Amino acid sequence: MKARVHIMLKDGVLDPQGEAVRHALGTLGFEGVTGVRQGKVIELDLAGDDKAGAEAQVRAMCEKLLANTVIEKFTVEVI
Amino acid sequence: MKARVHIMLKDGVLDPQGEAVRHALGTLGFEGVTGVRQGKVIELDLAGDDKAGAEAQVRAMCEKLLANTVIEKFTVEVI
Repeated sequence: MKARVHIMLKDGVLDPQGEAVRHALGTLGFEGVTGVRQGKVIELDLAGDDKAGAEAQVRAMCEKLLANTVIEKFTVEVI
Repeated sequence: MKARVHIMLKDGVLDPQGEAVRHALGTLGFEGVTGVRQGKVIELDLAGDDKAGAEAQVRAMCEKLLANTVIEKFTVEVI
């Protein structure tokens, strides 16, 4: 079973990496890009077949290790 | 309009960051995690309403700036 976790900075938290990308895109001539946010995606291969259990486990992983919940938000998707 | 880009290392390319996460999860007592791959997600706010045009433009951004196509693969999703 696979799980995919998206980790993004919360709205309102400054994202200098995204700003740098936006600026670089403008320099390269790409117009109409009004905002860029950069985050992480983590794909996990999990043993077992229990989807609900897996989602709960991955949420615990995010709380404990993968995300900094003070400034980051995460979404979990079990595939 | 929003576009979301996923950038992951190609299969077969060593992912030390993912390996570190896998190891750390094991240390924290999370069992059954057989593999971890870490990548980037970039969310773009785009002006205009032309979905097909936007997707083509974002693909060009990936080729030119966002992804290193030698070792990385990307997927584009226009929302």
